[in-house]
Order: sequence, then structure tokens, then C-alpha cells
Amino acid sequence: MHATIEWLDKPRPHIRLIDQTALPSRELYLEIFTVDELVDAIKRLVVRGAPALGVAGGFGVLLALSQGNRESWPADRLKTEIAKVRHCRPTAANLAWGVDRANSVAGLGYEAVRAEAFAIFHEDDAKNRELSRLGADWIQEKISSSSVRVITHCNTGALAATGWGTAYGIIRELHERQSLGLVYVDETRPLLQGSRLTSWELTQDGIDHVIQVDGAAASTILGGLVDVAIIGADRITANGDTGNKIGSLPLALACARASIPFIVAAPFSTVDLRMETGDEIAIEERGADEVSSYWAEGTTVPGVKVFNPAFDVTPHDLISAIVTEFGVFEPSISRPPARISELVDNR
Amino acid sequence: MHATIEWLDKPRPHIRLIDQTALPSRELYLEIFTVDELVDAIKRLVVRGAPALGVAGGFGVLLALSQGNRESWPADRLKTEIAKVRHCRPTAANLAWGVDRANSVAGLGYEAVRAEAFAIFHEDDAKNRELSRLGADWIQEKISSSSVRVITHCNTGALAATGWGTAYGIIRELHERQSLGLVYVDETRPLLQGSRLTSWELTQDGIDHVIQVDGAAASTILGGLVDVAIIGADRITANGDTGNKIGSLPLALACARASIPFIVAAPFSTVDLRMETGDEIAIEERGADEVSSYWAEGTTVPGVKVFNPAFDVTPHDLISAIVTEFGVFEPSISRPPARISELVDNR
Repeated sequence: MHATIEWLDKPRPHIRLIDQTALPSRELYLEIFTVDELVDAIKRLVVRGAPALGVAGGFGVLLALSQGNRESWPADRLKTEIAKVRHCRPTAANLAWGVDRANSVAGLGYEAVRAEAFAIFHEDDAKNRELSRLGADWIQEKISSSSVRVITHCNTGALAATGWGTAYGIIRELHERQSLGLVYVDETRPLLQGSRLTSWELTQDGIDHVIQVDGAAASTILGGLVDVAIIGADRITANGDTGNKIGSLPLALACARASIPFIVAAPFSTVDLRMETGDEIAIEERGADEVSSYWAEGTTVPGVKVFNPAFDVTPHDLISAIVTEFGVFEPSISRPPARISELVDNR
Repeated sequence: MHATIEWLDKPRPHIRLIDQTALPSRELYLEIFTVDELVDAIKRLVVRGAPALGVAGGFGVLLALSQGNRESWPADRLKTEIAKVRHCRPTAANLAWGVDRANSVAGLGYEAVRAEAFAIFHEDDAKNRELSRLGADWIQEKISSSSVRVITHCNTGALAATGWGTAYGIIRELHERQSLGLVYVDETRPLLQGSRLTSWELTQDGIDHVIQVDGAAASTILGGLVDVAIIGADRITANGDTGNKIGSLPLALACARASIPFIVAAPFSTVDLRMETGDEIAIEERGADEVSSYWAEGTTVPGVKVFNPAFDVTPHDLISAIVTEFGVFEPSISRPPARISELVDNR
């Protein structure tokens, strides 16, 4: 199995990433020795996905310390470099969470940060497996079919995490329970994480699936071809509003009309309790070339203006369930609207 | 200005098409001398768009007669060849309509068919201009802004017709009335009619626009960035259900949630009164390679299964207005649900 992200101490401390921009045609690995290289890799989506970005945040602090030692940075330079990692993808809650968690023990020295970063890394798999079990339980309670047909968007599998996955983890869990039907995968424009990455993982896992253009999701759902939609999340606010890859919201609208469940799966580190609603989520806008050209060849009138938001926000009333490792929260039916933090308070 | 489709009698009777698969990078024309060449061009979307396919249907009958004369076809061969044209894109109502209309005078001979096919061609522009006026009137009655911001999907401009357009025609009319704001154009996967064709036409017409991935349409609409969505149609059933390019339905769902108008614009020849509801519309499923590769380079795991429906159906209750050259029909508010044929009955 590939490793999405690893920390290696020798010959010189660094991060090793599978290059997700090259998949599925090539399986390349990048060795990352500096903060600038890491920021570039995160911005280019060499590494991406909420849990993996949490780990990248933790290892990023460690990398900054290591580079700082090597290059004798003063304290303010170190602070600036860590902030670069923290802010390089504004919508991703987990990235900032991972940076903050590792950085919180920086006063205790390099080894303490190293231990904290590895704790984030090692906890990730367990969290994702737990939320996958909880999500599959919830689905099997609601849907009696022994062959649950699923639609998903973007990539939320092992590539988006350290080895299991979030929304993909639930799909995998249903597969292991022999309760999974056909999986419909949105290709997920502009960068095709669905057709390039999710399909690659499903193929490796031997899971029967089809890919479709994002515009087909609504008619697939309203046409009765799927029983449930499951997506990941980049940031979830206190009321349950969910920021995720652009093109997630249309699935939620279609599921509401079709009266089938729309599920968000994410580790609790994706929840940002400092934000009350999705209106506060900063939506990253990315480069025009992602939309105007494919793999080097232009497909538009040269120089045309492009609007390229990377995420959308799904209002909580359209979300049937938010599945975390702490439990399942049902924002669309909670009366009065509960804060997702009650999940933690009540556990 | 380019010509989408033309009939030329000399040196030998044939159809001339701009190759819409090569735009915007190259402006090529194809000369079509046989039914097989025409069917191939229609299937490959060299020519496409509801009104243009109506014209192609009419000229197609003329082409079959001409080829039949040249090659001394027996009557049943002629019938088979005409049927090939009629059925080569199953969802397109106008193609069958154009074939049937031209063919209805076949008993009167070649010149009668030629006159009928040219009548279809010449009427197209006037119909589209009329429906564009009616559509712009309707919008200006509902939306007080002097700068109406529009979202559209696929291509419905001069390339989809003989020179004016349907949904695009309304946008153009608003522009001529100096009442148009920014236009958001869905790129329209898989074949990018939005980013390749609509953007090309908007650029030529000097209309300010941005292109976006299809998945961004819902958040653009719910984010308050547009005042109205306007799309074309490939087939409209008696109750107003509308088959159109895959990815149209999500716009309708988002407009309903945002409480902004969702408008379908089409010549009345797109209405198929023999079908009561959209459930009867046959959805063309196209080749996997449209989704799995871009401009020659593969982007998926080789051999992955692809689901590639070319159209979706928007239920009439999500449609604020269907604009035809005969008037505006409001299927979402008619009580009891009216048949669209009342448009004609009442005019």
C-alpha cells in the first residue's frame, strides 16, 4: 500500500508524500525538506484531504523546527514559517488544527513536538475507523438494503488520510460488511480527485464503481440510482454547516428532494467551534488554469475570466448526519438546532 | 460571423457545418455529402443544439434525397437512411421534428422538400428573436435590476441555432437592452460546450462573463451572485418537464432553494406533446471516453466504468417559466397543472 504522508528522520529529517497530482498514471513520491517545499506541495494538492492535512500541519511544525535548527532561525522567523503552513489553504480546518496542536508543545522542545506530530499521525487511522463503523451503523439502521448504493464526491480515502479514510472509510466499512452496492463517483472538477484518486482506491480495493461528471449527480440521485450520499468535509461550523469540495452542495439539494440521507463524515478536528455558521467560512479561490486547461491543452478562449472557488458550503438543514469518531450528529432534525459541540459534551 | 449550418447546391448538393468540436482553438468547416457523414457529424456533436438540429433534420432529408438520386436508391433504402438521421440522437426532439417536417412534403418532390427545409432554416432566426424578446420582457417584469446577472449552462447561442440562440438569445436581448450584468457560464462537462462555445460567443459579442466548473453553480446561485438561471432544452413534455444537457437539473434545485427564477428557453418545436411527462424521455448515454480522457490524455484508471448520460430531466415544478416564440408558460405555478399545449390553444 502507498503511504500518503510519512515523517523520516534520516538521512535528514523530512516529509515524504505521494504526489497526488500524478496519480493514477504515475506513482511518484516527493521528499520535502523545507517549509517552502511543503507549502508548495499543499497548495498544489500534492497532499490534500482533511485528515492528511491535519497530519501535514503537525509534521509541518516539526519540519519548521528542524529547518530552523539547521539554518539557525531566530524565534520570529520560526513563528512566521509555521504561520505560512497554517494559512496556506484557508478553508482547511484540519491544517490549522494540526499546526496548533503540534505547536502547543513547542515550548517543551523538538522531541515533544515530534511526539505530538506522531500522535496526530497515529490517532488518525483509529479515528477514521471508528467514524466509519459509526457511519455504517447509522446507514444500516436507516436503509434496510443489503446492497447500499452510494454516491460520493472528491476523494476521502486513504489518500486523504493516513490509511483508511472518512466518507470513503464508511464505504469501505459497508464493503467489509458485504452490504455495499454500486458506488457512483463524481469526477470532481476541476482537479478530478474523484476520477483520478477515488476510482484508483476503489479499483485497488476491488469495489465496483462508476465515474460520472459532476453535473450527473442530481439526476443519478433523483433517478433512484443511489440510496445515500456520503461526503467528507474541510470545515464544519458549530451549527453543522459544512464546507467541502466545490460540487458537494448540489448533492445535498438533490438528496433533500429525493428524501434520501446526505451524510458528512469527518474527524472531529474538522469541526471549528469558533465559527457559528457557514457564512464565516473563507472559501479558497484557486487559479484559472485549473479550469481553463486540461493537462497542458487549453480549452477556452485565451484569457477568459474564470471563477474557481474550491469549496462550497452545505447548510446544516440539508445534512442528515454528521459522522465523527465521537458519534453521529443529525443537524437537520435537531430541535432546537443543536451545536455540534454537544456531541462532545454528551459523550 | 460564422455559419453554424448551411445548405449549398453547388458544386454538388451538400451541407456545410462549422466543426464545433474544434472550437475555440480552430475554426474549421466540414462539407457533408452523405447521410453517413451527417449522422457521424451529429453524433460527434460537430453540429448540436436544439434549433440547429431541427435545421440539420430538414437538410438531412434533402441530403438523403440528393444522395438517393445520385446513387439510385430504392424507396425503402431512402426511408431507412432518413430514419438514421431522425434517430441518431434520441433525446433531441428538434432533430426528429425537422426530419418529419421536411419529409412530410417528400411526396411533392425534391423542390418541395428543399423549400420546406429552407423554411425551417429561415424561420429559426425569427422564432429565436421572438422568444428572446418575450423572455427578456418576462425577466424585466420580475427582476427590477438594471443589471440582471445570469447563470447559464451548455451552449444555446448562434452555434446552437442558425444565428441568434435561445437561452443565449435572451441573454443577448438583455445585453442589447443594456440590462445585463455579469454572466456565469458553467463549463458543461463532459464536452465543455460552456467554456468552449458559449464563452467564445460571449467574447465575440463583447459580453462580460466568467466560466466556472459545473459543481460551482449551486453555490453561485445560493451565494446570491446571480438573479436568474436561463437554459435551453432538448425535449419538453406536455406537463413542462424538460430534458436538457446533463447538469441542468442542479441549477433548478438551487434556484428553487434560492427563490430565484429558473427559465427554460426553446422554440416550440422542442415541445413533444406525445409525451406526458419527463419519465418518458429517453436519455442518450454517450461514450466513456468523453469522461475518462481529455483531449487525448487519459485521466482515470484505464478501463474504469463510466456512467455518461448526456441529459437530465428537470421536473416542471422547478421551472419558473418556459419561454417559446408563442409565449411564456409557467409550469411551476399553473393550478391545476396545465399542459404546455395551452400556449398554442390560447394564443
